[in-house]
Amino acid sequence: VGKKHEIVSFTSDYGLEDEFVGICHGVMLRIAPHLRIIDLHHGILRHDVRHGAIVLEQAMHFLPPAIHLAVVDPAVGSERRAVVIESGSGQYFVGPDNGVLLPAVAKSGGPVGAWEIIDSEYLLHPISRTFHGRDVFSPVTAHIAGGVDPSELGTELSPDELEVLEVPEAWLHDDHLHAEVLQLDRFGNLQMNFTREQLEKVGLAADESVEIRLEGHRLEVPIGKSFADVGTEEFVFVEDSYQRFSLAVNKGDAAARLQARAGSTIIVGPADH
Amino acid sequence: VGKKHEIVSFTSDYGLEDEFVGICHGVMLRIAPHLRIIDLHHGILRHDVRHGAIVLEQAMHFLPPAIHLAVVDPAVGSERRAVVIESGSGQYFVGPDNGVLLPAVAKSGGPVGAWEIIDSEYLLHPISRTFHGRDVFSPVTAHIAGGVDPSELGTELSPDELEVLEVPEAWLHDDHLHAEVLQLDRFGNLQMNFTREQLEKVGLAADESVEIRLEGHRLEVPIGKSFADVGTEEFVFVEDSYQRFSLAVNKGDAAARLQARAGSTIIVGPADH
Amino acid sequence: VGKKHEIVSFTSDYGLEDEFVGICHGVMLRIAPHLRIIDLHHGILRHDVRHGAIVLEQAMHFLPPAIHLAVVDPAVGSERRAVVIESGSGQYFVGPDNGVLLPAVAKSGGPVGAWEIIDSEYLLHPISRTFHGRDVFSPVTAHIAGGVDPSELGTELSPDELEVLEVPEAWLHDDHLHAEVLQLDRFGNLQMNFTREQLEKVGLAADESVEIRLEGHRLEVPIGKSFADVGTEEFVFVEDSYQRFSLAVNKGDAAARLQARAGSTIIVGPADH
Repeated sequence: VGKKHEIVSFTSDYGLEDEFVGICHGVMLRIAPHLRIIDLHHGILRHDVRHGAIVLEQAMHFLPPAIHLAVVDPAVGSERRAVVIESGSGQYFVGPDNGVLLPAVAKSGGPVGAWEIIDSEYLLHPISRTFHGRDVFSPVTAHIAGGVDPSELGTELSPDELEVLEVPEAWLHDDHLHAEVLQLDRFGNLQMNFTREQLEKVGLAADESVEIRLEGHRLEVPIGKSFADVGTEEFVFVEDSYQRFSLAVNKGDAAARLQARAGSTIIVGPADH
Repeated sequence: VGKKHEIVSFTSDYGLEDEFVGICHGVMLRIAPHLRIIDLHHGILRHDVRHGAIVLEQAMHFLPPAIHLAVVDPAVGSERRAVVIESGSGQYFVGPDNGVLLPAVAKSGGPVGAWEIIDSEYLLHPISRTFHGRDVFSPVTAHIAGGVDPSELGTELSPDELEVLEVPEAWLHDDHLHAEVLQLDRFGNLQMNFTREQLEKVGLAADESVEIRLEGHRLEVPIGKSFADVGTEEFVFVEDSYQRFSLAVNKGDAAARLQARAGSTIIVGPADH
Repeated sequence: VGKKHEIVSFTSDYGLEDEFVGICHGVMLRIAPHLRIIDLHHGILRHDVRHGAIVLEQAMHFLPPAIHLAVVDPAVGSERRAVVIESGSGQYFVGPDNGVLLPAVAKSGGPVGAWEIIDSEYLLHPISRTFHGRDVFSPVTAHIAGGVDPSELGTELSPDELEVLEVPEAWLHDDHLHAEVLQLDRFGNLQMNFTREQLEKVGLAADESVEIRLEGHRLEVPIGKSFADVGTEEFVFVEDSYQRFSLAVNKGDAAARLQARAGSTIIVGPADH
């Protein structure tokens, strides 16, 4: 029996409109009553593995050492693997083997061990076809928290065998950047998949404006330091709290104004002089 | 003074859009700072006692031993009783006496004691007319958790005097099943009030298709093991995670497609050959 | 090093649709793993400092002694101050200096100390321009909980220097009351900024009807003790759970019926005889 962990971070696409999240809390506390659970995000877009992967990866820097449970699982009930991954920093990651975990594992020292969860007395029976968060992932998480070694929960995998998810990278072309909307927040701010460093590589110096094309719109957008650098209802690019660029509207909703969403492509180039 | 309980499960129709749930947490932690609260479900349909009863009943198998607080209370401020019920397994249930608690109590060994909560120093004064979750049920829950005996909180009732709620049962007629939608989940899956056993009683063998009539639609629906047994956007019946049948659309929303909701009636019969 | 606090109440306009709240929990538990966090309300209307102030003020009577973190911060990234306030009852309040904290502080013994948070090793670097909840307010809250004295986190202010927010008071004119909707709850009940005492001052005795004008509607509304005092879908005034008057519709939604919202003005006068 290994050391006991106290904190679990929990990310899912279950939403808070029904009892899925509460039931998983119940299952975990039944097995490991000492656990403390941080509900990181349960509004992951339904079945959007990439969205879950980005949110968990970006959060790693801010979370305490924990067991990280992430359930975004469009293939639940099919043959996809359920896995436990141990990272170089000694943290555990539990979820389906569809790539949702690996970007966060990479931020935590990379994978140093992996196990395919197998049916055992540690799971809840009968195992449903549709709710592995309850029957597989929550009990596994809680048993690891209680000190059960992952080797008792599954068969060892090489980390090379884990499924990798393509997270889109911005690419450079002459003086343009071809990029993508990674996600929206509640305020309609559009997080892009590029950083200041990439903007500079195409010669789009900071503190100026750029021209963007997005969902049929063509706009000149100033690069600001905060929303308040532009007038009410005006567009602005700001470096967001994860050092990625976000397209925002001061006191407004950029996503609604442009009808943009996760996956929308954007071309960023020099503003017309 | 009895034993101390550590965990509370909390179910309500308060939603998470205002401070009702947070205030109840505050009241409980003020009285019993050691408490751990599982928010099972606060999205119970407004005033839908049956919905709350089904959710709590289905959850019992997955929750740790706890004091179960359930507030779905359309008659708050009228003469309905507020009650504490003790179950055969030594768990307590706190809420209005409108049937929301009893199905869960039945899953927990049945009622072995019941008390009508009376006004006392244990409640918060002035007791509002509209927020008994805060002024009556949360303090009673927390005081029981702190070891106060229910007999100090109310007058004993016979469990026979408790209000019973009719939860609809499917009924059989020749080779048909007359059933009902119990509830929807966030994904639009429709949970029905019948099980495999009842399907078999009317001769609708597993692993085949059935014909259903629901909200004016007439459809042949295969019985699958998981959503992935049918193509994208196709209907399928699966045994859900509570062993009830759910009507789902693979990667789609069955409720929206059929304009069905809790209480919609369904007739299930043999598929046309 | 001062005494350790165990409980934090957390109020914000972050919503629960993304990871903002979960990240702040993570930051706090990383610094102070013993903390217990009450999520009081994360559905404060976006950027509505007044809404946040009213919710926290009304909640104080029901919360345990705690550090109260409130982030409604439309001017994040500009020059507005970030502050810690100590109240006469020995509780701490952390948030932007825009008035969101002071009404609650007043309910807790008034301000006896105030500090402007300054950049230090206690904050998370790089400090983002847009997410001070994560980089400034959560770490400050957790360090105070861990026993760090506020004087190590900032420079002392006179409480007189703190920004005050105007919270509207109802005013009396002859036999009329000019009042305002303070907030809506999930059920569409409209909380007004007047009490029974103010109604009596203009001679509108209790237990009768009043005439109201609100958003172009002119209605006679009975003053009841509970929603059930009127028929289904009928309007009624009830003293709400904070002793303020709320305009409700029995089993209906008053806000939707009248198209009213926070800030809507209302005139309350004698009913026509």
